[in-house]
Order: sequence, then C-alpha cells, then structure tokens
Amino acid sequence: MLDELKKAVCNANLELVRHKVVIYTWGNVSGIDREKGLVVIKPSGVDYANMAPEDMVTVELDSGKPVEGKWKPSSDTQTHLALYRAFPSLGGITHTHSVNAVAFAQAGLPIPALGTTHADYFYGDIPCTPSLTEAQTADDYELNTGLAIEKCFKDMGINPVAIPAVLVKNHGPFTFGKTPDESVYHAVVLETVAEMAMKTLALSSDAALPQYILDKHYQRKHGPNAYYGQK
Amino acid sequence: MLDELKKAVCNANLELVRHKVVIYTWGNVSGIDREKGLVVIKPSGVDYANMAPEDMVTVELDSGKPVEGKWKPSSDTQTHLALYRAFPSLGGITHTHSVNAVAFAQAGLPIPALGTTHADYFYGDIPCTPSLTEAQTADDYELNTGLAIEKCFKDMGINPVAIPAVLVKNHGPFTFGKTPDESVYHAVVLETVAEMAMKTLALSSDAALPQYILDKHYQRKHGPNAYYGQK
Amino acid sequence: MLDELKKAVCNANLELVRHKVVIYTWGNVSGIDREKGLVVIKPSGVDYANMAPEDMVTVELDSGKPVEGKWKPSSDTQTHLALYRAFPSLGGITHTHSVNAVAFAQAGLPIPALGTTHADYFYGDIPCTPSLTEAQTADDYELNTGLAIEKCFKDMGINPVAIPAVLVKNHGPFTFGKTPDESVYHAVVLETVAEMAMKTLALSSDAALPQYILDKHYQRKHGPNAYYGQK
Amino acid sequence: MLDELKKAVCNANLELVRHKVVIYTWGNVSGIDREKGLVVIKPSGVDYANMAPEDMVTVELDSGKPVEGKWKPSSDTQTHLALYRAFPSLGGITHTHSVNAVAFAQAGLPIPALGTTHADYFYGDIPCTPSLTEAQTADDYELNTGLAIEKCFKDMGINPVAIPAVLVKNHGPFTFGKTPDESVYHAVVLETVAEMAMKTLALSSDAALPQYILDKHYQRKHGPNAYYGQK
Repeated sequence: MLDELKKAVCNANLELVRHKVVIYTWGNVSGIDREKGLVVIKPSGVDYANMAPEDMVTVELDSGKPVEGKWKPSSDTQTHLALYRAFPSLGGITHTHSVNAVAFAQAGLPIPALGTTHADYFYGDIPCTPSLTEAQTADDYELNTGLAIEKCFKDMGINPVAIPAVLVKNHGPFTFGKTPDESVYHAVVLETVAEMAMKTLALSSDAALPQYILDKHYQRKHGPNAYYGQK
Repeated sequence: MLDELKKAVCNANLELVRHKVVIYTWGNVSGIDREKGLVVIKPSGVDYANMAPEDMVTVELDSGKPVEGKWKPSSDTQTHLALYRAFPSLGGITHTHSVNAVAFAQAGLPIPALGTTHADYFYGDIPCTPSLTEAQTADDYELNTGLAIEKCFKDMGINPVAIPAVLVKNHGPFTFGKTPDESVYHAVVLETVAEMAMKTLALSSDAALPQYILDKHYQRKHGPNAYYGQK
Repeated sequence: MLDELKKAVCNANLELVRHKVVIYTWGNVSGIDREKGLVVIKPSGVDYANMAPEDMVTVELDSGKPVEGKWKPSSDTQTHLALYRAFPSLGGITHTHSVNAVAFAQAGLPIPALGTTHADYFYGDIPCTPSLTEAQTADDYELNTGLAIEKCFKDMGINPVAIPAVLVKNHGPFTFGKTPDESVYHAVVLETVAEMAMKTLALSSDAALPQYILDKHYQRKHGPNAYYGQK
Repeated sequence: MLDELKKAVCNANLELVRHKVVIYTWGNVSGIDREKGLVVIKPSGVDYANMAPEDMVTVELDSGKPVEGKWKPSSDTQTHLALYRAFPSLGGITHTHSVNAVAFAQAGLPIPALGTTHADYFYGDIPCTPSLTEAQTADDYELNTGLAIEKCFKDMGINPVAIPAVLVKNHGPFTFGKTPDESVYHAVVLETVAEMAMKTLALSSDAALPQYILDKHYQRKHGPNAYYGQK
C-alpha cells in the first residue's frame, strides 16, 4: 500500500543526511496521499543508516491512527497532521534541527529576507511563532505546535506555498513542499539562507532587501510568467 | 579479559573521529565494569588510525593501577576514575576538545539551555566548573579535575544522568553515558548545542527557554511516561 | 561546434560543486569564443549530477539568441553577455551564491583588502554595486545587472583583470577570468577571502592593509616582473 | 640525494591538503639537512594533486641557490631560509593561509593562550609581528619577512621550540617543528586554537588562562617530567 509514497518519503529522509542538516535520528519527513487521507512518515528514533521504505509508518490524516508499519511513527507526527489538515496545498513536510535555522528559532526571531537567494524560494521573512503557552505544552504538545504554526500563518496572512518554511520558537524549522522531496529541498535552502542572514547581520545590523527585488526574484521563478529553469 | 568492554571502548573512541569532534590523538573514552571494579580506557597519545580493542588499557577503579594492556593509559585517566567513583550511575565517559564546547569552557561560561535540541538531552544548563586553584593544579591535577567536577555537580544538586555533560573551565567538555557509546553520543550532541547556543547569543543576548518547555522535551524522551523512540 | 569550449565550460561548472561553492542548481559559468562572437553557458535550473558538455547552451554575444543546445540558457545569461561586451579582456565568468561573499553583498559592503591572500588575486577592495532601481529591476533585470556592474567598474576606474570579482548588492558575487576555469578559481578564492575578512572585522573593526603590501603581493604574482609560480 | 627528506617534505605538503588547511597551490612546507646545509622545499605554484618527492626543490641554506630539482622553489623560500639560519633548533617549517589564523594576522593580533588545547602545544600567546615597513617590502621582501619573525622572537625572548608558531601581520601563520611533519601538525593545531580563541572572545572579551594552568599543560607534555603519551 502506498509503495511509491513510502519510497519517496524514505528517500527524502535520507536526503537530510546527505545534505548534512541532521545527525543521528534527528529530523523527520512525511508525505501525504490526499485521496486516501493517509500520511506516510519516518518512524520515531530509528537510525538513518539502514532505513528502507518498509520502515515508514502510515497513519490516518484525521485521527493519526497508525494503519501500517512495524514501528511507532515520529513523535512529531501530530504536528505534521495538523499542518496537512490546515493547508491542503501541502504534499510534504520536513522538520530538522539544522544549526543556523535553530539559532534564529532559539532567539525567537524571523529569518529576514535580505537577498535574492532567499527571494528565489521564500516570498518574505520566514516567520517565527510565539512560544507555546504552558497549557499548550502540557497536553497535546505536538498537535498544539501544528496549530500554533497554522495560527501564525493565518494571522500574518501567509500562504505556505509562497513562504514554505516556519520557525517554531525555542525549537526549530518546519519546511513545506508539493512533495516530500521538495520539503527537504526547502529545508536545505532554509539552512543556507539562515547562515547568510546571520553573517549579513553581523556585518550590518540594518541590512534590508527592497520589496521590488523580492518581487522580481520570487516571480521570475514562481510567478505566472516565470522564466527560470526549463519551463 | 573484558573483551566486550574493550571492543565497546575502542569503537566509541573511533566514533569520535567519525563525528569529527577530535583530531590527531585528542580526546578519550572509557567504560567501566562495575562488578569487577575495572575501567577500560584509551591509551595515551596513540593515533586513532590503527587503534584496535587490544590497544585499550585496563586499570583498577580504586587505585588506577594498570592491570592489562601494552600501553600507558590516557593522561586523563585519574579524572575518569574520580568520576566513576563519585557517580555510580556512570557506565562511560568521554573527553574531547570540540571547538564550540571548548569556547564556552575557555570563556568560563555554562552552555545555556536555549531550545528543545538541548532539552532533549540535557535537563538544564551545562555547568562550567570554577578554575582549579594553583595548589589543585600543581599535584594530582587530573584527579583534582575529577574532584572539581564532582563538587560542581553536588554543590549545584545536579544528577549527571539528567545533565550528562560538564565543562571544565579553561579546558573542555566531559560527557557521560550509561555506556561508552552513549557518552560519545552526548559529546557530539553537546558540540552541536554549543554551536547553536553561541549563534543564538550572537543574534539575541537575552534568549531564554521557558522551564515548562525544558520539562516537556526532557520528559518526553527520558521521563517515566517517555514516548519518544520505539519504547 | 565549439566542442573544446563546451567541455571547458561544463568542467568549470562542475568545479563549483567540487569546491562546495554551490548547491543544487545554483551558480553558473560561461566562456566566450571572441572570434566567433559566441558564448557558451550552463543551462537554466539543470542538476549538476549528470551534466555533460552537450548540455551547455551556445548563444550569440550580441543578441543573446540561442544558436545551439537542447536547453534554455541560464536565466543570468544577459548579465554574462553585458559583461563580455563591456570588457573585451574577459574569457570566462562565474556567478555563485557562496555564503560569505553573499553576506557582504547583502550587507551592501565591499570586501576590504585586508591581507596578502586577498592581494595575491585582487588588486584592491572587491566593489559592491549600488542596488538596482525599481525601473532597472522591472524590465531587462539581468541585462541591467550587467550594466550596473559595468558602470560600477568604470565609475571607480577598476580594471576587471586587476580585480576579477564584484558583488551585486542584495544578490551575490560574479567573478572573472581569462578562461572559464580561471573565473571559477577566482570564485573559490573570493569566498575564502570573504570569510577571512568577516572574521578579521569581528576581531578588529579597523583592520587595514598598507598599500605597499597590496602592491607587492599583487605585483609579485601579476606584475611585469612577477616571480611567483613557474613562469 | 636527500631522498628521505624529499619524501618527508612531499608527504608533509600533502598533509596540508588532507587536513584542509590549504586549497589550490597555497601553503608550503620545507625540511632541512643541517649536516649538508641543504633545505628541501615545495616548488612554487605547483598543484598538490600529482605532487611527488622528485618535484621537491633542494636549495643551499646559506645562499638559497637551487642545487637540485626541476622546478623553481616556493616564492617564500627566503623566509624559510632566514628562519633556519636564525633558529638552529628548527627541522621543518610550514606556511599556510588557514582562515582563522589569517584572521588574527590580518587584525594584527596575537592568538591569546586561553585554554589547555593551546597550552598543550604553545607555551604562551602566538605572537604577531609588526607590519613590514615600505623599505622592507620593496626589496628582499621574503628575506625580510624571515628577519622580522626572528626579531620578533628575539625581542620578546621567545624560543620557537616552546612557541612553534608565529603570525606575520597582514599575511598569515608560519609554524615550526623538529621535522617537516611536526611543523604541519602545529599548523593544523594552530588553526584549531585560533578558531577556539575567536569564538571564546566572541563569548567573553576578557577570557584568560591562569599562568599555572599554562605551565601545567605545557610541562606535562614537554617538560623534563612529561608524562603525556608513551614516553
């Protein structure tokens, strides 16, 4: 069942290792089959070394109930599910603890759009959620993490297709894609633009990007008249 | 004698190289057989390149007397022994000079708990001992290093199982585990959270983690109702 | 047609990956055949993994019209062409988003000549163009990027052979060479001297290089009496 | 002639690449045969990729006259020779442009002894020479670089065996050893302690190491009663 999706999710998880944005069992990637209402996700706390498609876990989108797989799903599964329910455009979600993105999350700061590298992928600053409250943390913590991201995007009027990344305060980044693989791609790009932003701010605390350059670069890749790549 | 432990200690030492937290002959890992009262540790100043289990050195827990091995034990052996004697819960100890952890040690500062990556492994700030005095340095320096760590943990009421890492001022980190391998794991995680903390502080000098998030993340992995991993 | 140049351009693009100054499809290298008035450049948005000489795209220097190749040329092609037209001494051009050089570009700051590593390759500070205006960005953005670089060099009286690199504000570096390969070489050196400059400024905000040392190091490699290397 | 020394010098040069303290043709290592009064050094501007012992160049210690080898010697040869003449204890010398050490050199600052990693190899701060004057730069620049290092050590009463490293202001590090290989070892350690020092200063600008800990660590490895390693 869902063999192609399991392969895609497994390979996307291994991409995290290849791009050095995770160590040990850190991080997790999921993918969704919208028609069947099923989400495939990495197992919890299992090493990447020998991970195979059959190690992936399938859960129901609505209930989180495991329907297939020999392992327990990632402890962050409820966060992924809340995001898939909130944003029907998402096909894949990645969570990492990559160092530079985490530094912004721990500082409680957005990653500011300071250049065209950022603008090529993210149409504005990467938002950082507020801290979860004590009550939100005590029960259903992972679900509430997803709901906090949803509220953050909706309050700020952000479309997760246009800014496919978010920082959870004190925690780290979640990134989005049309596919599991694309969400990993955005995780790697996010880590790079986070490092660029940190170093830029060290050189000049008032660095900024004109809105029209942000528009231009985002639109030349993603707008209706995009002309980047072979499209 | 102790063939399994020697293999475990040798492999744990080689893990330090694979994870790039040591260069040349730096660093050392030990493990203990509590029943026999014997500690197995890396030899002093020997290259990692061709290190094999039979190169490990076995010493008595109480006296430090070598009982087996063709080499002299690590010059830091007395520090390891003092820690094993002080904390019966320890099964493995690792010492490195990893760059980011050393930077905090040289600055004489604890590594503050600023996010969930830290909280997943360390239940609070990583303490930094005071400088050893001139008298403590002159004689039995390595033993006194261990005693200073013991005093630091006991004065602060810290259990080394809950915070399995410490910085020795002007020197570097020691990390602990139930096994040699786990102490290496903590050494690698420590280096990563040290880098995260340094970059966080560069972005925001007043970054902090709410106590209830520290509790939540530590408990979901290590508390009585832990639900991370396949337990 | 232009088989040697296509091989050289393809290999120069792959050098970017080997030296870790690009990830994914980022970056592009071109080369020129001045006699034929043709420029060979990397295709747009194509992976480096299986890139071969026959994937390179050939365009006319004057019009930008593609004359050979199965792909669309790099979206930055018009920037390259403007630079080849402005500076007849250029034989190869490289564009990257390497992190440290981008940080200076995003800060809108030149990379100051602070030491002999810089002076061995660049005869003075690496200039940073002003931001493009909204009008320059709206239409013919890539062409205007090239014209902005041309104006910057001509206004400042800089010869791109003596300082074969420039930062485009909010964007990133372009580097030059007599050949495609040499322009990549300069891209890698630029990223290194950018990192050195950033760290130097963190240690001492008023660091500076005496003009006579800049002269000496540049001249001993590139002057009429150069004595570096096997010349 | 000097086959063993050529092998040692060649291998030491290749070690620079393996430890990632040089790129391209940067850096150079030499070794000396004191009895014959001959120095073997890397050729100038030759790639490391296919470098073999027979590519090394042999020159006279006193005159610098090449006596064997198919290439021109390193452009820094006169610096090496001046150092061998000034300090009879040196058996090998390494020069690199490693990033963190260069940052201190470009800032014109010594690398302060802030911890035991430093103290294990260098018995005090790594000195930084003053800038060469315009006259010293104009003629015999490389020779004058060596003389400036000699003067720096003699003015400060430093023995290059006890502190086997120096920074040349605006330029970069030279390191020393009893053998070519040991001088490379010190170049790699120097780069690491430079990174540690930079990060320590970023955390705490008044970090310092008590003299008695510097003494203890240096002496336990290098003093008359040294007990580190298998001696």
